[in-house]
Amino acid sequence: MTRPSHVTLYEVGPRDGLQAEKTAVSTTDKIALIDRLSQTGLRFIEVASFVSPKWVPQMADASDVLAGIARQPYVTYPVLTPNAHGYQAAMAANAQSVAIFASASETFSRKNINCSITESLDRFAPVAEAARNDGTALRGYVSCVAFCPYEGRIAPAAVAEVVARLADMGCYEISLGDTIGRATPADTERLLETVLNRVEAAKLAVHFHDTYGQALANILTSLDYGIATVDASVGGLGGCPYAPGASGNVATEDVLYMLNGMEIETGVDLDRIIDAAWFISDILGRQPRSKTAIALGRL
Amino acid sequence: MTRPSHVTLYEVGPRDGLQAEKTAVSTTDKIALIDRLSQTGLRFIEVASFVSPKWVPQMADASDVLAGIARQPYVTYPVLTPNAHGYQAAMAANAQSVAIFASASETFSRKNINCSITESLDRFAPVAEAARNDGTALRGYVSCVAFCPYEGRIAPAAVAEVVARLADMGCYEISLGDTIGRATPADTERLLETVLNRVEAAKLAVHFHDTYGQALANILTSLDYGIATVDASVGGLGGCPYAPGASGNVATEDVLYMLNGMEIETGVDLDRIIDAAWFISDILGRQPRSKTAIALGRL
Repeated sequence: MTRPSHVTLYEVGPRDGLQAEKTAVSTTDKIALIDRLSQTGLRFIEVASFVSPKWVPQMADASDVLAGIARQPYVTYPVLTPNAHGYQAAMAANAQSVAIFASASETFSRKNINCSITESLDRFAPVAEAARNDGTALRGYVSCVAFCPYEGRIAPAAVAEVVARLADMGCYEISLGDTIGRATPADTERLLETVLNRVEAAKLAVHFHDTYGQALANILTSLDYGIATVDASVGGLGGCPYAPGASGNVATEDVLYMLNGMEIETGVDLDRIIDAAWFISDILGRQPRSKTAIALGRL
Repeated sequence: MTRPSHVTLYEVGPRDGLQAEKTAVSTTDKIALIDRLSQTGLRFIEVASFVSPKWVPQMADASDVLAGIARQPYVTYPVLTPNAHGYQAAMAANAQSVAIFASASETFSRKNINCSITESLDRFAPVAEAARNDGTALRGYVSCVAFCPYEGRIAPAAVAEVVARLADMGCYEISLGDTIGRATPADTERLLETVLNRVEAAKLAVHFHDTYGQALANILTSLDYGIATVDASVGGLGGCPYAPGASGNVATEDVLYMLNGMEIETGVDLDRIIDAAWFISDILGRQPRSKTAIALGRL
Protein backbone atom coordinates (compact mmCIF):
# COMPACT_ATOMS: atom_id res chain seq x y z
CA MET A 1 0.00 0.00 0.00
CA THR A 2 2.76 2.45 -0.89
CA ARG A 3 2.18 5.21 -3.37
CA PRO A 4 4.57 5.10 -6.30
CA SER A 5 7.08 7.93 -6.66
CA HIS A 6 6.85 7.67 -10.44
CA VAL A 7 3.81 7.03 -12.61
CA THR A 8 3.70 6.12 -16.29
CA LEU A 9 0.95 7.92 -18.16
CA TYR A 10 -0.28 5.73 -21.01
CA GLU A 11 -1.91 8.03 -23.55
CA VAL A 12 -4.97 6.57 -25.27
CA GLY A 13 -6.45 9.72 -26.85
CA PRO A 14 -5.49 9.11 -30.50
CA ARG A 15 -6.94 5.60 -30.43
CA ASP A 16 -9.51 5.03 -27.69
CA GLY A 17 -10.44 8.71 -27.59
CA LEU A 18 -10.84 9.51 -31.28
CA GLN A 19 -12.54 6.18 -31.90
CA ALA A 20 -15.39 7.30 -29.62
CA GLU A 21 -15.70 10.84 -30.98
CA LYS A 22 -18.59 11.53 -33.31
CA THR A 23 -16.59 13.92 -35.46
CA ALA A 24 -14.25 12.15 -37.87
CA VAL A 25 -10.64 13.34 -37.72
CA SER A 26 -8.46 13.22 -40.84
CA THR A 27 -5.31 11.11 -41.00
CA THR A 28 -3.26 14.30 -41.27
CA ASP A 29 -4.78 15.71 -38.08
CA LYS A 30 -4.30 12.41 -36.23
CA ILE A 31 -0.64 12.45 -37.21
CA ALA A 32 -0.28 16.08 -36.14
CA LEU A 33 -1.83 15.26 -32.76
CA ILE A 34 0.42 12.25 -32.21
CA ASP A 35 3.50 14.24 -33.23
CA ARG A 36 2.60 16.92 -30.68
CA LEU A 37 2.07 14.28 -28.03
CA SER A 38 5.48 12.83 -28.88
CA GLN A 39 7.01 16.12 -27.67
CA THR A 40 5.32 16.09 -24.26
CA GLY A 41 7.45 13.52 -22.49
CA LEU A 42 4.84 10.78 -22.82
CA ARG A 43 6.46 7.38 -23.28
CA PHE A 44 3.39 5.48 -24.49
CA ILE A 45 0.95 6.78 -27.08
CA GLU A 46 -1.61 4.32 -28.39
CA VAL A 47 -2.15 5.41 -31.95
CA ALA A 48 -4.40 3.06 -33.89
CA SER A 49 -6.48 -0.08 -33.98
CA PHE A 50 -6.02 -2.79 -36.59
CA VAL A 51 -9.63 -3.89 -36.55
CA SER A 52 -11.89 -4.36 -39.52
CA PRO A 53 -12.94 -0.98 -40.95
CA LYS A 54 -16.39 -2.53 -41.24
CA TRP A 55 -16.63 -2.36 -37.43
CA VAL A 56 -14.55 0.72 -36.65
CA PRO A 57 -14.33 2.98 -39.71
CA GLN A 58 -12.55 5.67 -37.65
CA MET A 59 -9.49 3.42 -37.51
CA ALA A 60 -9.34 2.42 -41.21
CA ASP A 61 -6.24 4.60 -41.64
CA ALA A 62 -4.21 2.73 -38.99
CA SER A 63 -1.35 1.87 -41.37
CA ASP A 64 -1.22 5.41 -42.75
CA VAL A 65 -1.06 6.85 -39.23
CA LEU A 66 1.81 4.55 -38.30
CA ALA A 67 3.62 5.43 -41.52
CA GLY A 68 3.06 9.16 -41.14
CA ILE A 69 4.06 9.90 -37.56
CA ALA A 70 7.54 11.10 -36.65
CA ARG A 71 8.49 8.34 -34.25
CA GLN A 72 10.61 9.39 -31.31
CA PRO A 73 13.08 6.89 -29.87
CA TYR A 74 11.83 7.30 -26.30
CA VAL A 75 8.15 6.79 -27.24
CA THR A 76 6.36 3.51 -27.87
CA TYR A 77 3.33 3.64 -30.17
CA PRO A 78 1.13 0.63 -29.37
CA VAL A 79 -1.79 -0.45 -31.52
CA LEU A 80 -4.80 -2.66 -30.92
CA THR A 81 -4.84 -6.04 -32.64
CA PRO A 82 -7.97 -8.14 -32.15
CA ASN A 83 -6.81 -11.18 -34.10
CA ALA A 84 -3.97 -12.74 -36.13
CA HIS A 85 -5.02 -10.83 -39.23
CA GLY A 86 -4.82 -7.50 -37.37
CA TYR A 87 -1.51 -8.53 -35.85
CA GLN A 88 0.00 -9.21 -39.26
CA ALA A 89 -1.23 -5.86 -40.55
CA ALA A 90 0.25 -4.14 -37.49
CA MET A 91 3.60 -5.85 -38.06
CA ALA A 92 3.53 -4.86 -41.74
CA ALA A 93 3.04 -1.26 -40.52
CA ASN A 94 6.06 -1.67 -38.27
CA ALA A 95 4.21 -1.54 -34.95
CA GLN A 96 6.43 -2.18 -31.93
CA SER A 97 3.79 -3.01 -29.36
CA VAL A 98 0.30 -4.45 -29.61
CA ALA A 99 -2.71 -4.77 -27.35
CA ILE A 100 -5.56 -7.24 -27.05
CA PHE A 101 -8.86 -6.54 -25.30
CA ALA A 102 -11.13 -8.80 -23.33
CA SER A 103 -14.08 -8.07 -21.09
CA ALA A 104 -14.92 -9.16 -17.58
CA SER A 105 -18.61 -9.19 -18.55
CA GLU A 106 -20.01 -12.01 -20.70
CA THR A 107 -22.81 -9.86 -22.06
CA PHE A 108 -20.52 -6.96 -22.89
CA SER A 109 -18.10 -9.35 -24.59
CA ARG A 110 -20.88 -10.74 -26.76
CA LYS A 111 -22.29 -7.33 -27.65
CA ASN A 112 -18.92 -5.65 -28.17
CA ILE A 113 -16.81 -8.30 -29.87
CA ASN A 114 -19.48 -10.88 -30.64
CA CYS A 115 -18.10 -13.82 -28.67
CA SER A 116 -17.87 -15.11 -25.12
CA ILE A 117 -14.99 -14.17 -22.84
CA THR A 118 -13.40 -17.58 -23.30
CA GLU A 119 -13.82 -17.43 -27.07
CA SER A 120 -12.21 -13.98 -27.12
CA LEU A 121 -9.22 -15.25 -25.18
CA ASP A 122 -8.92 -18.20 -27.56
CA ARG A 123 -9.01 -15.78 -30.46
CA PHE A 124 -6.18 -13.76 -28.90
CA ALA A 125 -3.99 -16.84 -28.41
CA PRO A 126 -2.44 -16.72 -31.92
CA VAL A 127 -1.74 -12.99 -31.46
CA ALA A 128 -0.06 -13.67 -28.13
CA GLU A 129 1.95 -16.52 -29.61
CA ALA A 130 3.07 -14.45 -32.59
CA ALA A 131 3.99 -11.54 -30.31
CA ARG A 132 6.03 -13.90 -28.14
CA ASN A 133 7.84 -15.32 -31.16
CA ASP A 134 8.47 -11.86 -32.62
CA GLY A 135 9.48 -10.27 -29.33
CA THR A 136 6.61 -7.78 -29.68
CA ALA A 137 5.39 -6.27 -26.41
CA LEU A 138 1.83 -7.39 -25.66
CA ARG A 139 -0.59 -5.42 -23.51
CA GLY A 140 -4.00 -6.61 -22.34
CA TYR A 141 -7.17 -4.66 -21.68
CA VAL A 142 -10.06 -5.79 -19.56
CA SER A 143 -13.30 -3.85 -19.87
CA CYS A 144 -16.19 -3.63 -17.39
CA VAL A 145 -13.99 -4.25 -14.37
CA ALA A 146 -16.57 -2.80 -11.99
CA PHE A 147 -19.84 -2.37 -13.88
CA CYS A 148 -21.28 -3.54 -17.18
CA PRO A 149 -23.92 -1.48 -18.98
CA TYR A 150 -25.97 -4.67 -19.41
CA GLU A 151 -25.19 -6.79 -16.36
CA GLY A 152 -24.63 -4.14 -13.70
CA ARG A 153 -22.04 -4.92 -11.03
CA ILE A 154 -19.23 -7.29 -12.05
CA ALA A 155 -17.62 -9.47 -9.39
CA PRO A 156 -13.94 -8.69 -8.74
CA ALA A 157 -13.20 -12.42 -8.89
CA ALA A 158 -14.49 -12.54 -12.48
CA VAL A 159 -12.14 -9.68 -13.36
CA ALA A 160 -9.22 -11.34 -11.62
CA GLU A 161 -9.78 -14.51 -13.64
CA VAL A 162 -9.56 -12.67 -16.97
CA VAL A 163 -6.56 -10.64 -15.77
CA ALA A 164 -4.74 -13.80 -14.73
CA ARG A 165 -5.44 -15.44 -18.09
CA LEU A 166 -4.10 -12.41 -19.96
CA ALA A 167 -0.99 -12.46 -17.77
CA ASP A 168 -0.55 -16.17 -18.51
CA MET A 169 -0.83 -15.41 -22.22
CA GLY A 170 2.21 -13.16 -21.91
CA CYS A 171 0.80 -9.65 -21.45
CA TYR A 172 3.49 -7.54 -19.80
CA GLU A 173 0.75 -5.29 -18.45
CA ILE A 174 -3.02 -5.54 -18.07
CA SER A 175 -5.15 -2.41 -18.01
CA LEU A 176 -8.26 -2.51 -15.86
CA GLY A 177 -11.02 -0.54 -17.55
CA ASP A 178 -14.02 1.00 -15.82
CA THR A 179 -15.76 1.23 -19.17
CA ILE A 180 -18.84 3.17 -18.10
CA GLY A 181 -17.24 5.21 -15.32
CA ARG A 182 -19.55 4.01 -12.59
CA ALA A 183 -16.89 2.82 -10.16
CA THR A 184 -16.31 4.72 -6.95
CA PRO A 185 -13.25 4.31 -4.70
CA ALA A 186 -14.97 1.51 -2.76
CA ASP A 187 -15.37 -0.48 -5.98
CA THR A 188 -11.75 0.15 -6.88
CA GLU A 189 -10.60 -1.02 -3.46
CA ARG A 190 -12.59 -4.24 -3.75
CA LEU A 191 -11.34 -4.77 -7.30
CA LEU A 192 -7.67 -4.26 -6.54
CA GLU A 193 -7.75 -6.25 -3.33
CA THR A 194 -8.95 -9.24 -5.35
CA VAL A 195 -6.91 -8.75 -8.52
CA LEU A 196 -3.67 -8.16 -6.60
CA ASN A 197 -4.03 -11.65 -5.16
CA ARG A 198 -3.47 -12.98 -8.67
CA VAL A 199 -1.25 -10.44 -10.44
CA GLU A 200 1.29 -8.02 -8.98
CA ALA A 201 0.79 -4.24 -9.09
CA ALA A 202 3.76 -3.77 -11.43
CA LYS A 203 1.82 -5.66 -14.12
CA LEU A 204 -1.36 -3.61 -13.77
CA ALA A 205 -2.60 -0.34 -15.18
CA VAL A 206 -5.88 1.44 -14.48
CA HIS A 207 -8.15 2.93 -17.10
CA PHE A 208 -10.90 5.08 -15.62
CA HIS A 209 -13.66 6.95 -17.31
CA ASP A 210 -14.83 10.21 -15.81
CA THR A 211 -18.49 9.81 -16.72
CA TYR A 212 -19.61 10.43 -13.14
CA GLY A 213 -16.58 12.51 -12.15
CA GLN A 214 -15.04 9.62 -10.20
CA ALA A 215 -11.86 9.04 -12.22
CA LEU A 216 -9.32 10.98 -10.15
CA ALA A 217 -10.67 9.63 -6.87
CA ASN A 218 -10.33 6.12 -8.31
CA ILE A 219 -6.83 6.83 -9.59
CA LEU A 220 -5.83 8.16 -6.18
CA THR A 221 -7.17 4.95 -4.65
CA SER A 222 -5.21 2.90 -7.19
CA LEU A 223 -1.98 4.74 -6.37
CA ASP A 224 -2.49 3.78 -2.75
CA TYR A 225 -2.53 0.16 -3.92
CA GLY A 226 0.79 0.63 -5.67
CA ILE A 227 -0.53 0.94 -9.23
CA ALA A 228 1.97 3.01 -11.23
CA THR A 229 0.54 3.08 -14.77
CA VAL A 230 -2.49 5.18 -15.57
CA ASP A 231 -4.31 5.33 -18.91
CA ALA A 232 -5.58 8.76 -19.86
CA SER A 233 -6.78 10.66 -22.92
CA VAL A 234 -5.53 14.13 -23.86
CA GLY A 235 -8.34 16.68 -23.68
CA GLY A 236 -10.64 13.96 -22.35
CA LEU A 237 -11.00 12.72 -25.95
CA GLY A 238 -13.77 10.19 -26.36
CA GLY A 239 -17.26 10.32 -25.00
CA CYS A 240 -19.48 7.78 -23.36
CA PRO A 241 -21.69 5.85 -25.81
CA TYR A 242 -24.04 4.96 -22.94
CA ALA A 243 -24.66 8.58 -21.88
CA PRO A 244 -24.70 11.03 -24.80
CA GLY A 245 -22.84 14.26 -24.00
CA ALA A 246 -21.17 12.74 -20.95
CA SER A 247 -17.46 12.30 -20.38
CA GLY A 248 -15.52 9.19 -21.28
CA ASN A 249 -11.80 8.76 -20.70
CA VAL A 250 -10.28 10.78 -17.91
CA ALA A 251 -8.28 13.72 -19.31
CA THR A 252 -4.51 13.29 -19.28
CA GLU A 253 -4.03 16.85 -18.05
CA ASP A 254 -6.38 16.37 -15.07
CA VAL A 255 -4.44 13.27 -14.02
CA LEU A 256 -1.15 15.04 -14.59
CA TYR A 257 -2.26 18.06 -12.56
CA MET A 258 -2.99 15.78 -9.62
CA LEU A 259 0.26 13.81 -9.95
CA ASN A 260 2.30 17.03 -10.22
CA GLY A 261 0.66 18.36 -7.06
CA MET A 262 1.47 15.11 -5.31
CA GLU A 263 5.07 15.32 -6.50
CA ILE A 264 4.77 12.02 -8.30
CA GLU A 265 7.07 12.12 -11.30
CA THR A 266 5.80 11.38 -14.79
CA GLY A 267 8.32 13.11 -17.05
CA VAL A 268 5.38 14.69 -18.88
CA ASP A 269 5.09 18.44 -19.44
CA LEU A 270 1.67 19.81 -18.45
CA ASP A 271 1.81 22.87 -20.71
CA ARG A 272 2.54 20.76 -23.77
CA ILE A 273 -0.31 18.40 -22.94
CA ILE A 274 -2.67 21.38 -22.54
CA ASP A 275 -1.48 22.68 -25.91
CA ALA A 276 -2.23 19.31 -27.53
CA ALA A 277 -5.64 19.23 -25.81
CA TRP A 278 -6.64 22.58 -27.31
CA PHE A 279 -5.18 21.60 -30.68
CA ILE A 280 -7.37 18.51 -31.07
CA SER A 281 -10.39 20.15 -29.42
CA ASP A 282 -10.23 22.97 -31.97
CA ILE A 283 -10.26 20.36 -34.72
CA LEU A 284 -13.31 18.76 -33.11
CA GLY A 285 -14.92 22.18 -32.76
CA ARG A 286 -15.45 22.09 -29.02
CA GLN A 287 -13.78 22.82 -25.69
CA PRO A 288 -11.52 20.20 -24.11
CA ARG A 289 -13.39 17.81 -21.79
CA SER A 290 -10.96 18.63 -19.05
CA LYS A 291 -11.21 20.88 -16.04
CA THR A 292 -7.50 21.68 -16.10
CA ALA A 293 -7.37 22.63 -19.78
CA ILE A 294 -10.31 24.99 -19.30
CA ALA A 295 -8.98 26.47 -16.05
CA LEU A 296 -5.54 27.12 -17.55
CA GLY A 297 -6.93 28.10 -20.95
CA ARG A 298 -4.85 28.34 -24.11
CA LEU A 299 -1.17 28.65 -23.25
CA MET B 1 -7.89 7.79 10.01
CA THR B 2 -11.26 6.04 9.86
CA ARG B 3 -13.72 6.89 7.14
CA PRO B 4 -17.04 8.09 8.49
CA SER B 5 -20.09 5.91 7.93
CA HIS B 6 -22.28 9.00 7.61
CA VAL B 7 -21.50 12.31 5.94
CA THR B 8 -23.40 15.57 6.21
CA LEU B 9 -23.71 17.37 2.88
CA TYR B 10 -23.80 21.11 3.48
CA GLU B 11 -25.45 22.69 0.45
CA VAL B 12 -24.02 26.06 -0.59
CA GLY B 13 -25.52 26.42 -4.06
CA PRO B 14 -28.21 29.03 -3.35
CA ARG B 15 -25.69 31.31 -1.61
CA ASP B 16 -22.07 30.65 -2.57
CA GLY B 17 -23.07 29.25 -5.96
CA LEU B 18 -25.57 31.83 -7.16
CA GLN B 19 -23.41 34.65 -5.80
CA ALA B 20 -20.67 33.66 -8.28
CA GLU B 21 -22.95 33.14 -11.28
CA LYS B 22 -22.97 35.87 -13.90
CA THR B 23 -26.68 35.47 -14.62
CA ALA B 24 -28.88 37.09 -11.99
CA VAL B 25 -31.55 34.81 -10.56
CA SER B 26 -34.85 36.24 -9.35
CA THR B 27 -35.97 35.97 -5.74
CA THR B 28 -38.84 33.74 -6.86
CA ASP B 29 -36.47 31.34 -8.60
CA LYS B 30 -34.11 31.27 -5.62
CA ILE B 31 -37.02 30.37 -3.38
CA ALA B 32 -38.17 27.69 -5.81
CA LEU B 33 -34.67 26.21 -5.86
CA ILE B 34 -34.37 26.20 -2.08
CA ASP B 35 -37.83 24.66 -1.70
CA ARG B 36 -36.81 21.88 -4.07
CA LEU B 37 -33.59 21.33 -2.15
CA SER B 38 -35.61 21.14 1.07
CA GLN B 39 -37.25 18.00 -0.33
CA THR B 40 -33.99 16.16 -1.08
CA GLY B 41 -33.03 15.10 2.42
CA LEU B 42 -30.39 17.82 2.80
CA ARG B 43 -30.18 19.05 6.37
CA PHE B 44 -28.20 22.25 5.72
CA ILE B 45 -28.95 24.67 2.91
CA GLU B 46 -27.10 27.98 3.01
CA VAL B 47 -29.56 30.40 1.49
CA ALA B 48 -28.34 33.99 1.63
CA SER B 49 -25.72 36.48 2.66
CA PHE B 50 -26.47 39.54 4.78
CA VAL B 51 -23.71 41.63 3.30
CA SER B 52 -24.00 45.13 1.90
CA PRO B 53 -25.82 45.08 -1.47
CA LYS B 54 -23.17 47.57 -2.55
CA TRP B 55 -20.64 44.72 -2.47
CA VAL B 56 -22.79 41.74 -3.39
CA PRO B 57 -25.92 42.88 -5.25
CA GLN B 58 -26.89 39.25 -5.97
CA MET B 59 -27.70 38.84 -2.27
CA ALA B 60 -29.73 42.06 -1.76
CA ASP B 61 -32.88 39.95 -1.45
CA ALA B 62 -31.62 37.93 1.53
CA SER B 63 -34.55 38.85 3.80
CA ASP B 64 -37.09 38.18 1.06
CA VAL B 65 -35.56 34.77 0.40
CA LEU B 66 -35.73 33.85 4.09
CA ALA B 67 -39.30 35.07 4.29
CA GLY B 68 -40.39 33.28 1.13
CA ILE B 69 -39.04 29.75 1.55
CA ALA B 70 -41.14 26.95 2.97
CA ARG B 71 -38.95 25.99 5.90
CA GLN B 72 -38.84 22.33 6.76
CA PRO B 73 -38.32 21.32 10.38
CA TYR B 74 -35.41 18.98 9.61
CA VAL B 75 -33.52 21.57 7.53
CA THR B 76 -31.35 24.41 8.80
CA TYR B 77 -31.02 27.45 6.52
CA PRO B 78 -27.78 29.24 7.47
CA VAL B 79 -26.87 32.70 6.20
CA LEU B 80 -23.62 34.62 5.99
CA THR B 81 -23.20 37.55 8.38
CA PRO B 82 -20.00 39.57 7.99
CA ASN B 83 -20.63 41.97 10.88
CA ALA B 84 -23.01 42.99 13.68
CA HIS B 85 -25.23 44.89 11.26
CA GLY B 86 -25.60 41.81 9.05
CA TYR B 87 -26.22 39.67 12.10
CA GLN B 88 -29.07 41.91 13.27
CA ALA B 89 -30.63 41.84 9.81
CA ALA B 90 -30.34 38.05 9.75
CA MET B 91 -32.03 37.79 13.15
CA ALA B 92 -34.79 40.13 12.00
CA ALA B 93 -35.30 37.73 9.08
CA ASN B 94 -35.57 34.88 11.56
CA ALA B 95 -32.33 33.12 10.58
CA GLN B 96 -31.48 30.13 12.79
CA SER B 97 -27.82 29.76 11.95
CA VAL B 98 -25.15 32.20 10.77
CA ALA B 99 -21.69 31.99 9.27
CA ILE B 100 -18.60 34.19 9.35
CA PHE B 101 -15.77 34.01 6.84
CA ALA B 102 -12.07 34.62 7.29
CA SER B 103 -9.12 33.88 5.05
CA ALA B 104 -5.84 32.12 5.67
CA SER B 105 -4.18 34.52 3.22
CA GLU B 106 -3.42 38.10 4.25
CA THR B 107 -3.53 39.37 0.68
CA PHE B 108 -6.77 37.60 -0.12
CA SER B 109 -8.31 38.94 3.09
CA ARG B 110 -7.36 42.50 2.16
CA LYS B 111 -8.58 42.18 -1.42
CA ASN B 112 -11.75 40.27 -0.58
CA ILE B 113 -12.97 41.88 2.64
CA ASN B 114 -10.66 44.87 2.79
CA CYS B 115 -8.92 44.16 6.10
CA SER B 116 -6.21 41.97 7.57
CA ILE B 117 -6.96 38.51 8.93
CA THR B 118 -6.73 39.76 12.50
CA GLU B 119 -8.97 42.73 11.76
CA SER B 120 -11.53 40.44 10.18
CA LEU B 121 -11.56 38.20 13.25
CA ASP B 122 -11.97 41.29 15.45
CA ARG B 123 -14.88 42.38 13.28
CA PHE B 124 -16.52 38.97 13.72
CA ALA B 125 -16.19 39.08 17.51
CA PRO B 126 -19.48 40.98 18.08
CA VAL B 127 -21.27 38.55 15.75
CA ALA B 128 -19.86 35.62 17.67
CA GLU B 129 -20.81 37.18 20.99
CA ALA B 130 -24.34 37.96 19.87
CA ALA B 131 -24.74 34.44 18.45
CA ARG B 132 -23.57 32.98 21.75
CA ASN B 133 -26.00 35.14 23.71
CA ASP B 134 -28.88 34.33 21.36
CA GLY B 135 -28.10 30.63 21.12
CA THR B 136 -27.64 30.99 17.34
CA ALA B 137 -25.46 28.36 15.72
CA LEU B 138 -22.26 29.91 14.36
CA ARG B 139 -20.25 28.43 11.50
CA GLY B 140 -16.83 29.63 10.31
CA TYR B 141 -15.32 29.62 6.85
CA VAL B 142 -11.64 29.85 6.05
CA SER B 143 -10.71 30.62 2.46
CA CYS B 144 -7.41 29.93 0.67
CA VAL B 145 -6.56 26.94 2.84
CA ALA B 146 -4.05 25.58 0.30
CA PHE B 147 -3.43 28.28 -2.32
CA CYS B 148 -4.15 31.99 -2.66
CA PRO B 149 -4.60 33.55 -6.11
CA TYR B 150 -2.17 36.31 -5.04
CA GLU B 151 0.26 34.63 -2.64
CA GLY B 152 0.45 31.11 -4.04
CA ARG B 153 0.89 28.31 -1.53
CA ILE B 154 -0.44 28.96 2.00
CA ALA B 155 1.25 27.24 4.94
CA PRO B 156 -0.97 24.74 6.77
CA ALA B 157 0.15 26.31 10.07
CA ALA B 158 -1.33 29.66 9.00
CA VAL B 159 -4.61 27.91 8.25
CA ALA B 160 -4.56 26.06 11.55
CA GLU B 161 -4.11 29.36 13.41
CA VAL B 162 -7.21 30.90 11.85
CA VAL B 163 -9.20 27.70 12.34
CA ALA B 164 -8.25 27.60 16.02
CA ARG B 165 -9.26 31.23 16.50
CA LEU B 166 -12.64 30.61 14.88
CA ALA B 167 -13.15 27.59 17.13
CA ASP B 168 -12.24 29.70 20.15
CA MET B 169 -14.81 32.29 19.05
CA GLY B 170 -17.51 29.64 19.32
CA CYS B 171 -17.88 28.25 15.81
CA TYR B 172 -19.45 24.80 16.08
CA GLU B 173 -17.85 23.93 12.73
CA ILE B 174 -15.17 25.44 10.53
CA SER B 175 -15.22 24.87 6.80
CA LEU B 176 -11.83 24.68 5.06
CA GLY B 177 -12.11 26.27 1.65
CA ASP B 178 -9.81 25.57 -1.29
CA THR B 179 -10.99 28.77 -2.91
CA ILE B 180 -9.26 28.41 -6.27
CA GLY B 181 -9.38 24.63 -6.51
CA ARG B 182 -5.64 24.15 -6.85
CA ALA B 183 -5.20 21.69 -3.98
CA THR B 184 -4.32 18.08 -4.75
CA PRO B 185 -4.60 15.21 -2.26
CA ALA B 186 -1.03 15.83 -1.06
CA ASP B 187 -1.97 19.41 -0.10
CA THR B 188 -5.08 18.16 1.66
CA GLU B 189 -3.08 15.61 3.61
CA ARG B 190 -0.57 18.25 4.76
CA LEU B 191 -3.40 20.63 5.62
CA LEU B 192 -5.42 18.17 7.66
CA GLU B 193 -2.41 16.72 9.44
CA THR B 194 -1.64 20.20 10.74
CA VAL B 195 -5.17 21.47 11.38
CA LEU B 196 -6.21 18.28 13.20
CA ASN B 197 -3.49 19.00 15.76
CA ARG B 198 -5.51 22.04 16.79
CA VAL B 199 -9.17 21.20 16.12
CA GLU B 200 -10.88 17.81 16.07
CA ALA B 201 -12.33 16.32 12.87
CA ALA B 202 -15.89 16.55 14.20
CA LYS B 203 -15.57 20.35 14.12
CA LEU B 204 -14.29 20.52 10.56
CA ALA B 205 -15.89 20.60 7.14
CA VAL B 206 -14.21 20.70 3.75
CA HIS B 207 -15.15 23.00 0.90
CA PHE B 208 -13.44 22.07 -2.35
CA HIS B 209 -13.66 23.71 -5.71
CA ASP B 210 -13.42 21.55 -8.81
CA THR B 211 -11.54 24.07 -10.96
CA TYR B 212 -8.81 21.54 -11.79
CA GLY B 213 -11.00 18.47 -11.32
CA GLN B 214 -9.41 17.67 -7.95
CA ALA B 215 -12.42 18.05 -5.66
CA LEU B 216 -13.54 14.43 -5.31
CA ALA B 217 -9.97 13.19 -4.82
CA ASN B 218 -9.56 15.79 -2.08
CA ILE B 219 -12.87 14.86 -0.50
CA LEU B 220 -11.87 11.19 -0.54
CA THR B 221 -8.63 12.15 1.19
CA SER B 222 -10.57 14.18 3.78
CA LEU B 223 -12.87 11.24 4.52
CA ASP B 224 -9.80 9.18 5.28
CA TYR B 225 -8.90 11.79 7.89
CA GLY B 226 -12.31 11.43 9.51
CA ILE B 227 -13.91 14.57 8.07
CA ALA B 228 -17.67 13.98 7.93
CA THR B 229 -19.10 17.27 6.62
CA VAL B 230 -18.68 18.24 2.98
CA ASP B 231 -19.77 21.52 1.39
CA ALA B 232 -21.13 21.20 -2.13
CA SER B 233 -23.19 23.12 -4.62
CA VAL B 234 -26.12 21.65 -6.55
CA GLY B 235 -25.42 21.55 -10.28
CA GLY B 236 -21.92 22.86 -9.55
CA LEU B 237 -23.45 26.34 -9.20
CA GLY B 238 -20.87 29.09 -9.11
CA GLY B 239 -17.88 29.56 -11.32
CA CYS B 240 -14.31 30.51 -10.67
CA PRO B 241 -13.65 34.27 -10.87
CA TYR B 242 -9.95 33.57 -11.42
CA ALA B 243 -10.48 31.33 -14.47
CA PRO B 244 -13.45 32.37 -16.63
CA GLY B 245 -15.52 29.42 -17.80
CA ALA B 246 -13.92 27.09 -15.29
CA SER B 247 -15.66 25.21 -12.51
CA GLY B 248 -16.05 26.49 -8.99
CA ASN B 249 -17.80 24.60 -6.21
CA VAL B 250 -17.85 20.85 -6.50
CA ALA B 251 -21.29 19.61 -7.57
CA THR B 252 -23.44 18.11 -4.82
CA GLU B 253 -24.52 15.28 -7.10
CA ASP B 254 -20.93 14.30 -7.95
CA VAL B 255 -20.07 14.10 -4.25
CA LEU B 256 -23.27 12.22 -3.52
CA TYR B 257 -22.62 9.75 -6.34
CA MET B 258 -19.25 8.93 -4.80
CA LEU B 259 -20.61 8.66 -1.25
CA ASN B 260 -23.48 6.43 -2.40
CA GLY B 261 -21.01 4.15 -4.16
CA MET B 262 -18.94 3.99 -1.00
CA GLU B 263 -22.04 3.16 1.03
CA ILE B 264 -21.54 6.25 3.17
CA GLU B 265 -24.95 7.45 4.31
CA THR B 266 -26.08 11.00 3.71
CA GLY B 267 -29.87 10.78 3.81
CA VAL B 268 -29.94 12.73 0.54
CA ASP B 269 -31.78 11.50 -2.56
CA LEU B 270 -29.64 11.64 -5.70
CA ASP B 271 -32.55 11.82 -8.13
CA ARG B 272 -34.03 14.83 -6.37
CA ILE B 273 -30.66 16.60 -6.33
CA ILE B 274 -30.28 15.93 -10.07
CA ASP B 275 -33.77 17.33 -10.61
CA ALA B 276 -32.84 20.51 -8.69
CA ALA B 277 -29.59 20.76 -10.66
CA TRP B 278 -31.43 20.75 -13.99
CA PHE B 279 -34.09 23.11 -12.63
CA ILE B 280 -31.60 25.85 -11.74
CA SER B 281 -29.39 25.17 -14.78
CA ASP B 282 -32.40 25.69 -17.04
CA ILE B 283 -32.99 29.05 -15.35
CA LEU B 284 -29.34 29.94 -15.95
CA GLY B 285 -29.65 28.77 -19.56
CA ARG B 286 -26.86 26.23 -19.46
CA GLN B 287 -26.06 22.61 -18.63
CA PRO B 288 -25.28 21.62 -15.04
CA ARG B 289 -21.55 21.83 -14.22
CA SER B 290 -21.68 18.28 -13.00
CA LYS B 291 -20.58 15.06 -14.58
CA THR B 292 -23.27 13.05 -12.80
CA ALA B 293 -26.16 15.34 -13.80
CA ILE B 294 -25.06 15.17 -17.42
CA ALA B 295 -24.46 11.40 -17.37
CA LEU B 296 -27.85 10.69 -15.80
CA GLY B 297 -29.62 13.43 -17.75
CA ARG B 298 -33.06 14.77 -16.90
CA LEU B 299 -34.93 12.34 -14.69
